Amino acid sequence: MADPFTIGIAGGTGSGKSTVVRRLSDAVGDYVAVLEMDAYYKDQSNMPFEERVKVNYDHPFAFDMDLFINHVKQLKQGKAIDKPFYSFSEHTRTVKTTRVNPAGVVIVDGILVLEDERVRALLDMKVYVDTDDDVRFIRRLVRDTRDRGRTMESVIRQWLDTVRPMHIQFVEPTKKYADVIVPEGGFNDVAIDMLIASIRTRIAR
Amino acid sequence: MADPFTIGIAGGTGSGKSTVVRRLSDAVGDYVAVLEMDAYYKDQSNMPFEERVKVNYDHPFAFDMDLFINHVKQLKQGKAIDKPFYSFSEHTRTVKTTRVNPAGVVIVDGILVLEDERVRALLDMKVYVDTDDDVRFIRRLVRDTRDRGRTMESVIRQWLDTVRPMHIQFVEPTKKYADVIVPEGGFNDVAIDMLIASIRTRIAR
Repeated sequence: MADPFTIGIAGGTGSGKSTVVRRLSDAVGDYVAVLEMDAYYKDQSNMPFEERVKVNYDHPFAFDMDLFINHVKQLKQGKAIDKPFYSFSEHTRTVKTTRVNPAGVVIVDGILVLEDERVRALLDMKVYVDTDDDVRFIRRLVRDTRDRGRTMESVIRQWLDTVRPMHIQFVEPTKKYADVIVPEGGFNDVAIDMLIASIRTRIAR
Repeated sequence: MADPFTIGIAGGTGSGKSTVVRRLSDAVGDYVAVLEMDAYYKDQSNMPFEERVKVNYDHPFAFDMDLFINHVKQLKQGKAIDKPFYSFSEHTRTVKTTRVNPAGVVIVDGILVLEDERVRALLDMKVYVDTDDDVRFIRRLVRDTRDRGRTMESVIRQWLDTVRPMHIQFVEPTKKYADVIVPEGGFNDVAIDMLIASIRTRIAR
């Protein structure tokens, strides 16, 4: 069997990455394994809760890259992995894991998925989802106030204090590494169709 | 028969558009008709030669958009067209034309191919080839001094006087209309493979 076709989907928060990933994996069905880099936040249980909430979760250091890279490699070698489960309310890794079986297509996504050169070296196709910053902020504001019980003020504060500067410093520069840049994310039907055609062609080989 | 799949390839001078078009048309073979917007410069034979050379050839007004749009529409309707031939040394349209037969895939390319909304409305897929400005300048400098007998000074003068300001004003903003942005143009194998897979999928329908 050929190596799995491995795709990285990067882009800022609110760019529409997750919608792209969902539409791709829906189209490819059983042939796909998805690893969200969000599941690989470092366990912060060694520090008191008041410290955990102050961690900069938009910085590359917040992620357990060694484990993430190891899992991508395992999937590429046709081995199953146990994906960690991260509790965003407790800022800790839970004992629960999710079995991810190997598949012909591996999709990894996350704001910083193109940031680490060891990850880039594992990817056959590097996609950057590019959405204007104001639109990304609006999506995050709506999501966090509606679904996560956050106040408008706290969303604005986090955006200006960490999300925005980390995006400018670490996320946006990775656009340089992309093979293709997809404007507007999951609503871009033409680009989604193109990615699906490309994946299907690779599976058919 | 289904309507031809119509693709627009835009991007600044030296971006690698032509290499993308060549690689796509090579891959699709007989199924493709290519219209370069460069062939549709307005005939300037009504003005003296000294005036012709002063025309701003990077401005949208330099193109005979009505004829270009008409030809794209004809091809989409399955009709052959006679593509004009423009003499870049004389700045006039010659009597010579090239017959372009209808095909399952129509590719139109040019720096301003996404600038006119009437053209955009005819395109099924809008691609913007995005290459850094210094790299584009270097490619143009090498090409024009080697192949077109131009001096370095004249290439720099034209770049700063018209090519660069027109790029900023008219070409770069059309990136907004793209369905996909391809960094580095014809050297980007992953993106080229993706475009080819997408075209073949459409032809196969």
